[in-house]
Amino acid sequence: MSEVSLNALRAAVTDQVRRRMNDYRELFLSVGSEVNDLFDVAGPMLDRGKRLRAAFLAAGWRSFDGQEFATAEVRAGAGLELFQLAALVHDDLMDASLTRRGLPAAHQQFHQLHEDRSMISNPEDFGSAGALLLGDLLLVAAEAELQAALVDVPQAREARQVFEEMMAEVTVGQYLDIYAQAAPWSTDPQIDFDRATRVIRAKSARYSVEHPLALGATMAGANEDQRVATRAVGLPIGQAFQLRDDVLSVFGDPKLTGKPAGDDLREGKRTVLVTLAMTLASSAQREVLREGIGDPNLSETDVGQIRGILQASGALEQVEAFISQHADTARHAIEDLDVPAEQTKLLHYLADAAISRDQ
Amino acid sequence: MSEVSLNALRAAVTDQVRRRMNDYRELFLSVGSEVNDLFDVAGPMLDRGKRLRAAFLAAGWRSFDGQEFATAEVRAGAGLELFQLAALVHDDLMDASLTRRGLPAAHQQFHQLHEDRSMISNPEDFGSAGALLLGDLLLVAAEAELQAALVDVPQAREARQVFEEMMAEVTVGQYLDIYAQAAPWSTDPQIDFDRATRVIRAKSARYSVEHPLALGATMAGANEDQRVATRAVGLPIGQAFQLRDDVLSVFGDPKLTGKPAGDDLREGKRTVLVTLAMTLASSAQREVLREGIGDPNLSETDVGQIRGILQASGALEQVEAFISQHADTARHAIEDLDVPAEQTKLLHYLADAAISRDQ
Repeated sequence: MSEVSLNALRAAVTDQVRRRMNDYRELFLSVGSEVNDLFDVAGPMLDRGKRLRAAFLAAGWRSFDGQEFATAEVRAGAGLELFQLAALVHDDLMDASLTRRGLPAAHQQFHQLHEDRSMISNPEDFGSAGALLLGDLLLVAAEAELQAALVDVPQAREARQVFEEMMAEVTVGQYLDIYAQAAPWSTDPQIDFDRATRVIRAKSARYSVEHPLALGATMAGANEDQRVATRAVGLPIGQAFQLRDDVLSVFGDPKLTGKPAGDDLREGKRTVLVTLAMTLASSAQREVLREGIGDPNLSETDVGQIRGILQASGALEQVEAFISQHADTARHAIEDLDVPAEQTKLLHYLADAAISRDQ
Repeated sequence: MSEVSLNALRAAVTDQVRRRMNDYRELFLSVGSEVNDLFDVAGPMLDRGKRLRAAFLAAGWRSFDGQEFATAEVRAGAGLELFQLAALVHDDLMDASLTRRGLPAAHQQFHQLHEDRSMISNPEDFGSAGALLLGDLLLVAAEAELQAALVDVPQAREARQVFEEMMAEVTVGQYLDIYAQAAPWSTDPQIDFDRATRVIRAKSARYSVEHPLALGATMAGANEDQRVATRAVGLPIGQAFQLRDDVLSVFGDPKLTGKPAGDDLREGKRTVLVTLAMTLASSAQREVLREGIGDPNLSETDVGQIRGILQASGALEQVEAFISQHADTARHAIEDLDVPAEQTKLLHYLADAAISRDQ
């Protein structure tokens, strides 16, 4: 798959996502014109996805002779993208995030709509309920697309198992994430660091790369050994991807990431970056971190001070070293994978894009 | 299907629901022991379901020669029960309900757990996030069970369409419900009444009875005419069921319903009962309703006053008349359905249980 083909795949996936949502919009119009809101909020957000998961799915699919742009590939890609937005909408609601993909977060949009229409009751509650239901609807849409993708796939049962486990694991991993955020800091900082490592694995690393790759490979008929080898490619890319995300959320350019820098700090996210800093920092620095992380009112100056500690403690450097290690592991695993040269090249390209990005 | 067989089915469904949740618990234990919370909260709530939807599914299945206690029947029943709790957990979160099935609502349980463990951050936010994620997990579990039910079902594709549409429709219907609750009262009370009627249809009537019945019939191989006839049985039972629910939520005995009487009023639910009262009441009574409905601080006396207006205006009587009409329509539709006598008897029994219940 060339870069040109990759762009064409992204476009095909986007079309399919739109088709699904339009079908639902028409199907449920009889319930009432009010339901248009759900689709009006979802549409522009869905359009703006990077299609990372659909691309990894296609890489897995094509690596084992799946036909380019087959219904299976495009619809499974659409399913993963719908699931991704479902998870983000619920995530943003839990984190009270303000923006997503350069747009107001879904709960903010429903909140705004409540005010624009001078509705009664609490606008914040309405915003939360709207986002909760939109996430549920996207989750149902995601499963429907993934199922539809498997219609002519002989390995449908195995493929189904991959995405069902993925969906459940993300949910469970997110619980661990909110738990970590709400747990008092441990006296032994290593405990928090270990938990942060488990969180990124369950919540994001496997789900962002490993499962999509494995799903594509499974759908294309890869055997057990090949699926294991594919997962060995996906996991380290996913780990590096998530660590990059953690770094970008504190040090990234908001214009590129689409969300304010420092939000993870205000939300008290116990990322690997932050928990590692706790293990490395001086006790004075540790005090600043403990006070600041999770304080929703952190000023730009406060965020700057924390950034300084993340650097001075060596945590940022260490996380970058982790990212490099995972990237190396991924590169070797890609070389070890017995697939056509064109797919090897594509996997390297996607790995670089996931790991070295600035957005 | 006799009543004895129905009880055996309920037990089989309960076992399957437990098996699914235990499988997930074991599968995700490696993520961390923290995830046990999700299963500890879900377990007792799942155990206490009335299995109404599983029973209607079995009635549809057996009406068209589906084999008793077949994997398809039991697992699809388990899927519907898991979906039901997913919807309730999210519903209770949106409505800030205190109890469910005689237990603290899921968000209340996570809230409590936060306090019991002296966690940091806001306990209410943690409670909301826990319930949000539990609902998501139950939704994924529900789809997995429903899919598993179809493994050896020739009509799998048609059956899948039934439950996918059901899940999406419930979500969309719930949006209409929260929208109705947040919309200013219309100057023409008929508009609110019409919306309330659309809400019960999309959110509850079809989902509680019609879709489960149709799913069972479809899985058993019913043809198009038979499926239409089955839906004609399910819809009026579902409508009567939901109207009964609306009445019970205001006039029922909390000991039997498992939730405080008057909660629907405090939450500002625009039920058929309430919107009908608005069309029938005197302008003085209307003022009391408009002021009181949606006020979270309604006292027992206030609730009593509103109950009085719902009765005096004739709204309660009219809703009971609607229930009787739907029950009649259902009875005729059951007689018109060409199925074995034993299944006809069962359908009458289930219809009565759904409509005449006090819990």
